[in-house]
Amino acid sequence: RIMRPDDANIAGNVHGGTILKMIEEAGAIISTRHCNSQSGEPCVAALARVERTDFLSPMCIGEVANVSAEITYTSRHSVEVQVNVMSENILTGAKKVTNKATLWYVPLSLKNVNKVVEVPPIQYARKEQEDEGKKRYEEQKLDRLETKQRNGDVILPVINPEPHTVGYSQSSLIHLVGPSDCTLLGFVHGGVTMKLMDEVAGIVAARHCKTNIVTASVDAINFHEKIKKGCVITVSGRMTFTSNKSMEIEVFVDADPFVDEPRERYRAVSAFFTYVSLSKEGKPLPVPQLLTETEDEKRRFEEGKGRYLQTKAKRQAQMQQSAQ
Amino acid sequence: RIMRPDDANIAGNVHGGTILKMIEEAGAIISTRHCNSQSGEPCVAALARVERTDFLSPMCIGEVANVSAEITYTSRHSVEVQVNVMSENILTGAKKVTNKATLWYVPLSLKNVNKVVEVPPIQYARKEQEDEGKKRYEEQKLDRLETKQRNGDVILPVINPEPHTVGYSQSSLIHLVGPSDCTLLGFVHGGVTMKLMDEVAGIVAARHCKTNIVTASVDAINFHEKIKKGCVITVSGRMTFTSNKSMEIEVFVDADPFVDEPRERYRAVSAFFTYVSLSKEGKPLPVPQLLTETEDEKRRFEEGKGRYLQTKAKRQAQMQQSAQ
Amino acid sequence: RIMRPDDANIAGNVHGGTILKMIEEAGAIISTRHCNSQSGEPCVAALARVERTDFLSPMCIGEVANVSAEITYTSRHSVEVQVNVMSENILTGAKKVTNKATLWYVPLSLKNVNKVVEVPPIQYARKEQEDEGKKRYEEQKLDRLETKQRNGDVILPVINPEPHTVGYSQSSLIHLVGPSDCTLLGFVHGGVTMKLMDEVAGIVAARHCKTNIVTASVDAINFHEKIKKGCVITVSGRMTFTSNKSMEIEVFVDADPFVDEPRERYRAVSAFFTYVSLSKEGKPLPVPQLLTETEDEKRRFEEGKGRYLQTKAKRQAQMQQSAQ
Repeated sequence: RIMRPDDANIAGNVHGGTILKMIEEAGAIISTRHCNSQSGEPCVAALARVERTDFLSPMCIGEVANVSAEITYTSRHSVEVQVNVMSENILTGAKKVTNKATLWYVPLSLKNVNKVVEVPPIQYARKEQEDEGKKRYEEQKLDRLETKQRNGDVILPVINPEPHTVGYSQSSLIHLVGPSDCTLLGFVHGGVTMKLMDEVAGIVAARHCKTNIVTASVDAINFHEKIKKGCVITVSGRMTFTSNKSMEIEVFVDADPFVDEPRERYRAVSAFFTYVSLSKEGKPLPVPQLLTETEDEKRRFEEGKGRYLQTKAKRQAQMQQSAQ
Repeated sequence: RIMRPDDANIAGNVHGGTILKMIEEAGAIISTRHCNSQSGEPCVAALARVERTDFLSPMCIGEVANVSAEITYTSRHSVEVQVNVMSENILTGAKKVTNKATLWYVPLSLKNVNKVVEVPPIQYARKEQEDEGKKRYEEQKLDRLETKQRNGDVILPVINPEPHTVGYSQSSLIHLVGPSDCTLLGFVHGGVTMKLMDEVAGIVAARHCKTNIVTASVDAINFHEKIKKGCVITVSGRMTFTSNKSMEIEVFVDADPFVDEPRERYRAVSAFFTYVSLSKEGKPLPVPQLLTETEDEKRRFEEGKGRYLQTKAKRQAQMQQSAQ
Repeated sequence: RIMRPDDANIAGNVHGGTILKMIEEAGAIISTRHCNSQSGEPCVAALARVERTDFLSPMCIGEVANVSAEITYTSRHSVEVQVNVMSENILTGAKKVTNKATLWYVPLSLKNVNKVVEVPPIQYARKEQEDEGKKRYEEQKLDRLETKQRNGDVILPVINPEPHTVGYSQSSLIHLVGPSDCTLLGFVHGGVTMKLMDEVAGIVAARHCKTNIVTASVDAINFHEKIKKGCVITVSGRMTFTSNKSMEIEVFVDADPFVDEPRERYRAVSAFFTYVSLSKEGKPLPVPQLLTETEDEKRRFEEGKGRYLQTKAKRQAQMQQSAQ
C-alpha cells in the first residue's frame, strides 16, 4: 500500500511501527490460512514472537510497500513465517529491501480460545531445511522462557529529572482497546501492540536527543499474554543504553482488564528498540550519552552494551562471510 | 488485507465504499508505476473515470481481500486498468470473485499539476485487444462529455417530508479534506471520494427502507475536476428510482475551496449507486416504492427505470451467451 | 501521543476536536477504573457533561500531548474528573498548558445499560474540597435541566443566502456510527461526538470568515441521550454571534436510530463553540460581522452577546485576582 503522511514523522520517514504492523498482518494471514488448510478445527493464528529485525533503509511518504510472506517451519503447535518488505518508489521504479522479519504464530481454536490447535506439517525441499528450522524453534523456545522471568520490572515516575538521565526521557501512553484493534477472537493484533510500542520508544528517543529519529532495529519480542478487547493498555518506555550513534529503549506493555474481569494488571509484552538520530540529509548524528544514576540503571546500561557489542560482532561476521 | 469491523455495517457486510477505495489504490499504483517506467517527466496517475461495476457477492468481516490489477489499454494520455477483487475466507479457504472494475487514469506532471504527461504504450498480445481497447476508449470519452453537461443539478432541502418521498431520504455530509486523503500532488484520491459517496448513498437507502442494505452496483463515475487539500466537500444523495428489489441513488460531490482561493464552489463528481435490502439470512427483501412529487422527480424516475431495464437486458443477454 | 498531520488543519494547528477526544478518553478510563474498583457490578462510565473549557494555546503537528486526569468529586451516581493537557515540543523541550477540562461521568451497568451503578466514594484531603465539589455538582445538575428544555430548536435550510448571514455559513454532516466510535456498551464515546461537533463548527467559522480558524473555547456540553451503534447522526451548526475577533457557533447533534428501532429522531447533544481567526503569523484577525435577518436570529445574537460579555467579565475578574 502507499505510505501516507500519517504513517510518517515530520521529516517524512515512515514510522517503524507502521512497517511492523504490516509485517504482522501478512504473517497472520498466511499462518491462519495454513492452519485451516486441512479439515480440522477452525482457528486463528495468534502472534507469539517476532525475531530480532533490522530496518535496513528508511521508507518515505509516497512509496509503495510490497510485503511478501512464506512459511518456513512448522512444529506441532507453531508456525514460523518469514516476511520481506520491499519499498518501491513508483516514480523512479527503484526498489530496496526494507525489512526481513521472522514471526512465530500459534493457532488458537475459534470455539475455545484457550485451546491450541495442531498445525498441518509443511513439506521441506531438503532435509537440512527442516533441521535448521527445528534448531531455530528450540532456540526461540528457550529465549521465551528467559524473558518471562525478566517481566516484573516497572517504570517509576521521576520528579524534575536532569537532561539525558533515564528519568528525563522515559514516557508512557495509555490506550483503550477498541474493536478495530482486535482479531476475530477479540484479542489485540500483535501488530497493533508493536505500533504503539514503537510510538512510545520513538518519543523516548526524541526526548533524549531532540532531533529527527528513526527505528534502526527491534530485538526479539515475546507475546506472553493475550490482551482482550475493552482492556486499557499502558505502554511505557525508558532508555537503557546509548552508543555513539544509537539509543536502546526498553518498552513494556501492561494490560488492565478493569471491566468484567477479576484479574489484576499484568505484563503482556516487553522488548528492546534501537533508534538512530538523523540529520536533515539523512546522515546518522552523534547521540548524547545516557547518564545513569542508580545501580539498576548502571546494570541495565552494561547489559545493553553487551547486546550492542554482540550484535555488532554478529554483523561483522556476516559481512566477512558474504565478502568471501 | 483483512476486513475489520470498521469496514462493515452492523450486519457484518463490508461497505461497498471500502472495496472501491482498495480498487482505486491498486489502480493508482499500477498506472503511476507504468507512466514513470520510461525516463520521462515524473508524474502521478489521477483517476479520471470508473466504469460501471457490480458487487457480485458481499464480503464479510474477517475475510481477506485479494486485489489484482492489470493495464489493459493505453491511449496517448490515459491508461485503462482492470482490477479484480477476490474475497477469501482464510478459515475455510473458500474464494469468490467480489468485483471486477475498469478504471481510467490520466498522468499529471509532478512539477506542473495542470500538465498531462504522455503515456508509454503497452504491447498487446493480439491486434484485436488493441482495437477493442480503442473502442472502449472512444466510448468512455463520449460518455464523459455527456455527463459533464448534466452536472448543473443541485439538491434542494425539503421541510417536513412524507415517508418514501425523495425529500424524506435525501442526505448530505461535509468533509474537510485532510493530508491523508490526498496524493503526492495534494489532490484527493479518487478512492476517498468514492468511499464518501457510498457512505451517503447507503444512508439514503437505509433511510428509505429502514433495513440492512448493501451496495449492488455503481454506474460509471467521471471525475471532472480535481479537489485540493483544505477544501470542504459536500457529498449529497437523493433517491431517483426503485424497482421491486433495488434502489437507485444519485450522488453529487461539490468542492468548496474556501480558504486562500478566489474560486467558487464547483461540481467535482456525480454518479448513480444501486442498493438492495437484505434480510438477516442475506436474502433480498422487497423495497417500498419511491413516491415522486415534482415533474423533475417523475422524469428522473423514468430515466432511472430506463437504466434499470437496460442493465437487466444486458445481463440476460450475457447469461444466454454464457449458457450457449 | 504525537500530533499527526491528520489531527491538524492545513496551517498545522491541531483541531480542538482532536484534543477534546483525548480528554474524554482519559476521563472515561479513570472513571471506569474507579467505578469498578470495589467488588460491585461491572460498569462503564458514560460521559454526562463537560464544563466550559478554554483552549489556552494552539498545539502543532509533531508536538506530544501529555494528558493527565484526576477524580475530584464523587456523588452517589456520578464522578467529576479534572483533565489537564500539556503540549510538549520534544525537540526544544518546551512545555505549555493547552487545556484544563472538567468532565462528569455516570457509571452504567454492563449487564443492563439503563441501570446507573453506585459510585464508590473518594477520600478528600480537606473537608472544604468535598463541600466545593458538592456545590459544583448542584450547579451542573441545574444547568443540565435548563439546557434540556432549549433542545427543541432545529436548523432550517436556506436557499441562496447572502454572504455573512446565518444561512450562508450554516453546515451539517451525517455520520454512520461504526464499531470503533463506540464503548463496550455499544454507545458512541462522548469524545467522538465532540470531535464531529468541532469539525462542523470549524467549517461554519471558516465559511464565514474564509481564513485559518482555531477553537478558542467550548461552553458546557450536556449529553442528554445516548447514541447507539448503527445510528445515523446529523451534526448541524449555525453562527449565533460575532464580536470583533471571535465567532460563536451553536451545534446540535440529532440521532436517527433508523434500523431495527421504532424510535423517532431525537436531539442528543447541543453546545456553543467559540472560534478565532488567525493570520499566517498566528495573530488574531478581525472577523466580519454576522448579519442577522429574522427575529430569532437577532434574539440569539443578543443571547450570544450576553454570554460573551459574561465570560469577558469573569476573565477580567480572574486576572485582577491573580494580579493581587
